[in-house]
Amino acid sequence: MNAISTDPSTYQGLRPVQLSADGRALRLLDQTRLPIEEVWVELRELEPIAHAIETLTVRGAPAIGCAAAYGLYVLSLAFPDDPEAFQAAFDAAAVRLANTRPTAVNLFVAIEQQRGALAKARAQQPAVDGAGLRQALREEATRHVEDDLRFCLEMGAHGASCLPAGGILTHCNTGALATSGHGTALGVIRSAHASGTELHVFVDETRPLLQGSRLTAWELMHDGIPCSLLCDNMAGALMARGEIQAAIVGADRITANGDAANKIGTYTVAVLCKHHGIPFYVAAPWTTIDMSLASGAAIPIEERKPEEVRRHGGNLRAPADVPVRNPAFDVTPAELITGIITERGVFAPGELAAQAQG
Amino acid sequence: MNAISTDPSTYQGLRPVQLSADGRALRLLDQTRLPIEEVWVELRELEPIAHAIETLTVRGAPAIGCAAAYGLYVLSLAFPDDPEAFQAAFDAAAVRLANTRPTAVNLFVAIEQQRGALAKARAQQPAVDGAGLRQALREEATRHVEDDLRFCLEMGAHGASCLPAGGILTHCNTGALATSGHGTALGVIRSAHASGTELHVFVDETRPLLQGSRLTAWELMHDGIPCSLLCDNMAGALMARGEIQAAIVGADRITANGDAANKIGTYTVAVLCKHHGIPFYVAAPWTTIDMSLASGAAIPIEERKPEEVRRHGGNLRAPADVPVRNPAFDVTPAELITGIITERGVFAPGELAAQAQG
Repeated sequence: MNAISTDPSTYQGLRPVQLSADGRALRLLDQTRLPIEEVWVELRELEPIAHAIETLTVRGAPAIGCAAAYGLYVLSLAFPDDPEAFQAAFDAAAVRLANTRPTAVNLFVAIEQQRGALAKARAQQPAVDGAGLRQALREEATRHVEDDLRFCLEMGAHGASCLPAGGILTHCNTGALATSGHGTALGVIRSAHASGTELHVFVDETRPLLQGSRLTAWELMHDGIPCSLLCDNMAGALMARGEIQAAIVGADRITANGDAANKIGTYTVAVLCKHHGIPFYVAAPWTTIDMSLASGAAIPIEERKPEEVRRHGGNLRAPADVPVRNPAFDVTPAELITGIITERGVFAPGELAAQAQG
Repeated sequence: MNAISTDPSTYQGLRPVQLSADGRALRLLDQTRLPIEEVWVELRELEPIAHAIETLTVRGAPAIGCAAAYGLYVLSLAFPDDPEAFQAAFDAAAVRLANTRPTAVNLFVAIEQQRGALAKARAQQPAVDGAGLRQALREEATRHVEDDLRFCLEMGAHGASCLPAGGILTHCNTGALATSGHGTALGVIRSAHASGTELHVFVDETRPLLQGSRLTAWELMHDGIPCSLLCDNMAGALMARGEIQAAIVGADRITANGDAANKIGTYTVAVLCKHHGIPFYVAAPWTTIDMSLASGAAIPIEERKPEEVRRHGGNLRAPADVPVRNPAFDVTPAELITGIITERGVFAPGELAAQAQG
């Protein structure tokens, strides 16, 4: 076994968010159709791109950020050449994309980075035309996506030694599919496996949308990393039997005090870990940390449609009119988190604020 | 609101395990097809009856006991009249039924009660014939089923005052469908609601077989008791928000020390309750208590087929060859249980052994 290089140019794995070969479309691996079929879609217009984010063709906080970054560049190919009109078109597209999903902060970070790149180009090149502005957006998007891959590889390097040999529980999908490649929490698992740590990954199926069974299990099987799929309500029983030595998850937003919002069910995993004395790690790029929010109580939590809970595999499995709760995320308080793994290193939740200022 | 009578003769609710109108078949409401359609099946032979238990046409620990009791009587209609041959046929049928599902103790209790009724009839009536033996089995089965209904109504009366107003979490199905009527944990909820306690029931969907979404939600909607369906991984987040005031579940087997085996996921609910300081109740008839086992570690836990986890609504939603863990039950240790509600009253887990001797 050999440790995985943190040099993005050596990365040979899956990249689910791309520019198309002609550079004029956002190319996405349709995650709603995995693992049954691998279908790539190419999107060139605003509504299809926004819809792809809303309906989870692309999902995972870092991957959504990458899709927004490339998306704004692709859309700019149809923006007017006049800088003021270009800016107005950009602003309208940015508003629409920002309204797709509320919880993950990476989406907003990517949009603001593109807005900043546009402002910088206009400020530094008074005579800039549409071609120059598009060039600025393309460069910024490429930088965002390549940074994300590098951050994932660096998280893997920093976090691999956190994971003991034995059973590792993960929830949702935080792999290559959730990022520009390699993954956050699943990237750490990949890096630990590559370094020779003998892991068996327990994969929560992650109801209602089954990112665990559809995506994480698919990635682990593809890479030959030993794994078992289980329903979300089974991990506690396996912990009681001593079969799980650590848990690692991703995050959609981390607040200044170290609270972490992530896929619904993450909080329950953290409580179970606390009860059993098992370490609980969060892996996320630094862009996931939102220092503007003091604690997790301020994070907006997306509530999704009742049909996602009433239906299984597309088929109704509950009374058609039963009321439903369907929060898509929950917040794990800092005191339940053993360590937060970032590209800058592994930190206790309470160390983030000082690190941000450092 | 009026408290529900504990007199079984006044019960007007659903009875999912019956003798057919002609008294010659076991009549079951097919629980695998709820809530999409209400289909009753009538079974007269051993393999179909055993298969109905194995495939969950009838499920729920007390209901399985009722099905076995009636089932042995129905099967006896085809047993030879000679008492020795009758006994041999009974023993063979009993072995087959006992091998259907390992965890719930009520199945074995019902079989042993029928065996005892047969022995008693043969001892007390030296000249008994097949008709007399069948009569003994029919009377014992009827007694078992009527006792189960009475126990449920009495559990409801004892347990109703345990439940505070507000959000009540339940897991799996413990209602009329799981018993001969009214229910165990859901019976307590019914009785509390009827007594005027303002409840909102949060229903764990209960993967993989969805007894919560398919059966419990159906029963609650039918009775007009306010409820919301949620995925199993959401209850923790609702507890953190203060929306759940108590949890109540059933049990498939309770050991002498007060440990309780119940549907997979129950243990996680109990850990979450402990973490949030929320009372956690178990409701079960006294027949569920297995004083022959010292602790939950001795309870056999059924492991079911991988396809139940890989599939959703009949459709594959995971890699076809992904390894799976699928324990059907888990064990909640006595120290996480606030009270055990039985037809004899409400007890702390540690009080069961003394009560059994009293």
